[in-house]
Amino acid sequence: MANHTDPAAVRSRIDSLRAIMAESGVNAVIIPRTDPHLSEYISSHWQVVRYFSGFTGSAATMVVTLGKALLWTDSRYFLQAAEQLEGTGIELMKEGLPATPTVNSYLIDTLSKGDTVAIDGNLISIDAVAELRAELDRAGLNLVTVFDFVDRVWTDRPALPDAPVFMHPVEIAGEDASSKIARVLAEARTQGAEAAFISALDEIAWILNIRSSDVPCNPVATSFLYLSPESSVLFVDAAKISPDVEKALKECGVTVKPYQDVAAFLTALPAGSKVLVDTARTATAVATSLAGNAVDGSSPVALLKAVKNHVQIGGIHRAMVRDGVAMVRSLMRIEDLVAQGKEFTETDVADILLEERRKGEGFFDLSFGTIAGYGPNGAIVHYEPSRDTAATVRRGSLLLIDSGANYLDGTTDLTRTIAIGEPTDDMRHDFTLVMKGHIAIATAIFPEGTRGAQLDALARMPLWKEGKSYLHGTGHGVGFFLNVHEGPQSIRLNDTHAPLMPGMLTSNEPGLYLSGRYGIRCENLVLTVEDMTTEHGSFYAFETVTLCPFDRSLFELESMTDDEIQWVDNYHSMVFDRLSPALDDKERAWLREATKSLLILE
Amino acid sequence: MANHTDPAAVRSRIDSLRAIMAESGVNAVIIPRTDPHLSEYISSHWQVVRYFSGFTGSAATMVVTLGKALLWTDSRYFLQAAEQLEGTGIELMKEGLPATPTVNSYLIDTLSKGDTVAIDGNLISIDAVAELRAELDRAGLNLVTVFDFVDRVWTDRPALPDAPVFMHPVEIAGEDASSKIARVLAEARTQGAEAAFISALDEIAWILNIRSSDVPCNPVATSFLYLSPESSVLFVDAAKISPDVEKALKECGVTVKPYQDVAAFLTALPAGSKVLVDTARTATAVATSLAGNAVDGSSPVALLKAVKNHVQIGGIHRAMVRDGVAMVRSLMRIEDLVAQGKEFTETDVADILLEERRKGEGFFDLSFGTIAGYGPNGAIVHYEPSRDTAATVRRGSLLLIDSGANYLDGTTDLTRTIAIGEPTDDMRHDFTLVMKGHIAIATAIFPEGTRGAQLDALARMPLWKEGKSYLHGTGHGVGFFLNVHEGPQSIRLNDTHAPLMPGMLTSNEPGLYLSGRYGIRCENLVLTVEDMTTEHGSFYAFETVTLCPFDRSLFELESMTDDEIQWVDNYHSMVFDRLSPALDDKERAWLREATKSLLILE
Repeated sequence: MANHTDPAAVRSRIDSLRAIMAESGVNAVIIPRTDPHLSEYISSHWQVVRYFSGFTGSAATMVVTLGKALLWTDSRYFLQAAEQLEGTGIELMKEGLPATPTVNSYLIDTLSKGDTVAIDGNLISIDAVAELRAELDRAGLNLVTVFDFVDRVWTDRPALPDAPVFMHPVEIAGEDASSKIARVLAEARTQGAEAAFISALDEIAWILNIRSSDVPCNPVATSFLYLSPESSVLFVDAAKISPDVEKALKECGVTVKPYQDVAAFLTALPAGSKVLVDTARTATAVATSLAGNAVDGSSPVALLKAVKNHVQIGGIHRAMVRDGVAMVRSLMRIEDLVAQGKEFTETDVADILLEERRKGEGFFDLSFGTIAGYGPNGAIVHYEPSRDTAATVRRGSLLLIDSGANYLDGTTDLTRTIAIGEPTDDMRHDFTLVMKGHIAIATAIFPEGTRGAQLDALARMPLWKEGKSYLHGTGHGVGFFLNVHEGPQSIRLNDTHAPLMPGMLTSNEPGLYLSGRYGIRCENLVLTVEDMTTEHGSFYAFETVTLCPFDRSLFELESMTDDEIQWVDNYHSMVFDRLSPALDDKERAWLREATKSLLILE
Repeated sequence: MANHTDPAAVRSRIDSLRAIMAESGVNAVIIPRTDPHLSEYISSHWQVVRYFSGFTGSAATMVVTLGKALLWTDSRYFLQAAEQLEGTGIELMKEGLPATPTVNSYLIDTLSKGDTVAIDGNLISIDAVAELRAELDRAGLNLVTVFDFVDRVWTDRPALPDAPVFMHPVEIAGEDASSKIARVLAEARTQGAEAAFISALDEIAWILNIRSSDVPCNPVATSFLYLSPESSVLFVDAAKISPDVEKALKECGVTVKPYQDVAAFLTALPAGSKVLVDTARTATAVATSLAGNAVDGSSPVALLKAVKNHVQIGGIHRAMVRDGVAMVRSLMRIEDLVAQGKEFTETDVADILLEERRKGEGFFDLSFGTIAGYGPNGAIVHYEPSRDTAATVRRGSLLLIDSGANYLDGTTDLTRTIAIGEPTDDMRHDFTLVMKGHIAIATAIFPEGTRGAQLDALARMPLWKEGKSYLHGTGHGVGFFLNVHEGPQSIRLNDTHAPLMPGMLTSNEPGLYLSGRYGIRCENLVLTVEDMTTEHGSFYAFETVTLCPFDRSLFELESMTDDEIQWVDNYHSMVFDRLSPALDDKERAWLREATKSLLILE
C-alpha cells in the first residue's frame, strides 16, 4: 500500500479541527474528497481527506464530529483503508454494505435537534447539497456551506498547481475553440440560458483546446470558464498563461482573469443574465454566487466532448499503434525476465511499461497509475503497487496489468491478464469466461438509442451462469488526450440514460476477482460506429481499437464457440497487421507467434 | 377492425361537448382513456374516449378544443385509429414519432395566455397532474380538474358495472386478507404513513381475496379500499356484496360503504390521519379529498402481489397443465382444418381456443382478447380479429396466436407462431432468431438485484445482429387469477428499477414484425427461482412454466447452437411429460410427434 501518514499526526490534526468546530458552533464537518471542480483526480492542494485521515484512495468522504471521526469508502478500498486508518481512531464505514448508514443518515441518527453540520460549498454539487439540506431540515439540523478550517490546521498546505497551459493544436483536436464555444452556447440556449458556466476541468480543456499538467494523469488546467456570446472569460492563474496562449484565447473571444476572481465576477453579473449550470457537476458555491442568474440544467459539453470527430478518430488509431508497440515490447521483456528466472516485482512491471511508452511519439503522461497485480493482488480491483510492498512476480499465477497513456493524439487504457508459467485449468476456464463476455460486447450490434446499461449483462452472463460476477462497470467513456474516465455514456449495471453514439470511445473490461487467489480483467477500447440501416432503423456496432495480443495460453477452447474463436483470431490478425510495420524482426516474430490462430496448438 | 361508430354521431357528440365548454369558459378538454382507478382495461361506463371518437383501442388520449379534436395513440394502433377516425374530423396524433407533439406541448403551443384547460381529476394521477399543471402554469394557462360533461352529452351511458363480488378461497390464494392487510400497513409505516388508500382494482382484489367480473378479462371489482389498523373500509356498490362476502370481509376487519361515498369519507378523516397514496397510480381527485392527510409515496402492494407464494405457485403449475391441454387440442383442430382444406378465419381460431379453454377446470374468463393474426395481420402487434374483417387462414404464411385465460388458480398468457403449410426459408430463419432470444432469456442466470431492463437485450441481440428488432417489451409481470399485466417488474428497454425476485411471474416474449408479410412472437411465462449461492452472492434463474410445443417445422437448425437445440428438446420433453397424462391416445400421439427432438428430421 502507498505512503503512510503517522497516526499520531492524524489524531492531532483532527483535534485542531475540533477546536475550530467548537469555537464556531459546528457539531459535524463533512469533508468530501474532491476539489472545487468536483474532480475525480485532484492536485495535492486538495488532498484534504488524505491530510486529515492518512487515507490515500480515490473515493472517500470523511465526517468529523466532536466525539468521532469516520471515513466512508467503497469496496475497492476496504483493505487499504483499514490498514491506513489503523491507530488514527477514525472509524471505517464500508459503503454499500447493508449495515452501513449513508453519511446523511449517520448524521441524522447521531446528532441532536438544533445541531449544525458544516461542509465547504466548493466541494459539493448543487444537487447533492439540496438533498443533504432537505434531509437535515427534516431532522431539525442546520447546514452551513461556508466553513473555512483547512488552512488554519494545514499550515504547510501545498499551493494550487501552477503548471503552464499550452494549446492543443486544432490539427489534432479537429475543431477550433470558436466552433466549440458556439456549439456549447447553442445547446445552452435549448435549456433556456444565454450563457454557460463550466467548472469541470476536462470540459474546459476540451472547449478551449488547452491542456496543462495540474493534476496527475489528467492533462487539465485548474480554471473556471464563463461563456457568453459577448465575452467569455477563463479564470486561471495568470502565471500559467504565456503571451502566446493568451493571444490564442483572445482570438476565440476569451479573456483571462485571475482564478480567485470567479466568485466576485459571478456575483457582479447583471440581473437577467441567464447562466446555465450543471446542477450535478457544479459546486453549490457557484450557485450561491450566481443567485437568480443561474439556469439549472445539465452540461451539454459532456456529450459534445464524448463524440469524437474524424480527426480525433484518426489520432486515436495512430496512438493505439504506438501504445500497442510499447505493450508488445513490455510483454516481451516480462516474458524474458520470467524465462531467465530473474526476480522482479509488480513495480518493475510498471516501470517497464512506462519506459516503453515514453519512447512513443507524442507521449505526455500515463493516463492513470499503472495497476500491476500479481496473484492475490490481482484480485484487489484497484490495486496499485508501491515500491516497498510490491509482490514478486513468479511462476504459478496470473499477472493483471491495467495501464494507459495520454498521447497528444489520444488516450489509451487497456488491461491484459497473463499467465506467469503454466496456467491451471481453473485459470484458463475463468479467463475464458471473462473473454466470452468481452467478445459478447465487442460483437454487439444495437439500434440507435441503445444505452450501455442495456448491453452490460452480455458481458456478465457467461460468469453469472457459473455463479461468478464482478462488481465494477463493464465500460467507461474515455477522453481524447484528456481524462481516462469521462461521461456521459458507460456500460454498467446502473443506467446513465446516455445512448451510445457513433464516435464515442468506451472501454470493454469485464473481469473476475477471486479473493486470495487471482484477478482477471480483459480490456480493450471500442469505438461506436455506424453498422447498417434497415427497415427497422439504424444499427451501430463497436470497433475495437486497442492493439495488443491476449495471452493465448489462457484460452480454454472447449468452452468457446466457433464464432468466439474466430473473433480472437481475427482480432489477433488485426493486431499483427497494424503493429508489425513498427516492429523490428525479433519483435515481429514474437508477435506473429503471440497472434497465431487459437486452433494452432503448436 | 372492431365495431364502427357512425362518424356523424361522433361529430355531433363533439359539438355538444363544445357547447358545454363554451358555456363553462373552457378552451380545451383532455379526455384520458381510463377510469377513476387508472385501469388499463375499463368497463363500458368509462369508455368515454370511444363514445366521443369511435376509436376502440386500449391506449388513447383525446383533446377537444373549440376548433379542433385530436386523438393521441401509439404505434400499435396507428392503422386502426386512422380507419376508425375517418369522417369524424378528429386528427390522429401518432405518439412516439419525432414530429408529434405531446398533449401538453400541443396545448401550450396552440392555446392563448389565460385560456383554460379542463380534465376530470378522477382520470389523471397525482404525478401527471403536477407535471401538467407546472407546464401549463409556465405558459400562462389555467387548469381545472373538476369538469363534468360526460353525463350531459352521453345520455344513454351504461351504468357502473354491478357484477357480484365473490371470495377467492385462501386455499387457492395461499394467504388470508388479514395477513395481507397487516403486511401492507407495515410497509405503509416505513413510508411514514399510518393508513393507506388503494385505488388500483387488482391491488384491492389481491389484498382482500375478492374477485368479480366488472371489467372484461380482469376479474376485479369496482371499488376503493381504505386500510387502517383500527378500521378498514371497502367502498363498493352494496348490490354487489352478498351477506356471505360481507361477513368474510368483516372477519378481517373490513366494513363496506357505498362506492360513491369515498370522497366524502376521505374529506371527513380527522386531521393528522397519515394516509399513504401512490402518487403515480392514484387519481388526483383522491389527493384533493385527502388534502393534508395524504402521505405521498408508492404503493407497497404491487411488489407484495408480484411475489407469488408457494400455494399460488402450485396453482400456476396446475393451471398451466389445463391451459397446455387446451392449446394442444386447439392446435390439433387447426392442423386438421388445414389438412382437410377447410376454409376458416382468424376468429374461428379464437373461437376454437375459447371452446377448448372453457373445458378446463376452474376456467373463469380469457385473460385478454385473443390475438390471432394470419400473414400480414400477424405483423400488427396488437391486432385483434373481428368477425366481419377476419382474414382467412390458408397455406403459405404464419399464424400468430397470443392468448391466455384466467383460471381460479392462475392466469396464463402464451404466444405460438405456427406455419400454415410449408414455411419459407425466411420464415424459418426469422422464427429461429426470435427463438434464440427467447432461449437466451429462458436460460439466463443473474445475481440478486438484477432488473429486467438489464436482461432485455439478451432477447434482442440475435435480431439486432441482422438489423432486425421489435419495439414492444420482452416481458411483463403477470397476476394470479388477476390482471395479465401487472408490475412492478418487467423485461424491457426502459428501466423500471424493480429487481426480479423469486416468486415473480413474468412473460418472455420476443418477436419480429415484417410489415405486409408476417409476424412472429414466441411467448412463455417464466417464474423467477433461486438457483445458487456462491462466494459472489445469490443467483436466480427463470423456470419456464408454460406448457405448449413450439412449431418444429420453423426451426432452422443450422443457425442454432447445440445448447439452444438442447433447450428446445428439454422443454418439449417437459411439455410431453406434464401434459400427456391428461390427454387421450390420439392427442398423446400428436404431442409425442410435436415434441420429439429437433434433431429427428423424419
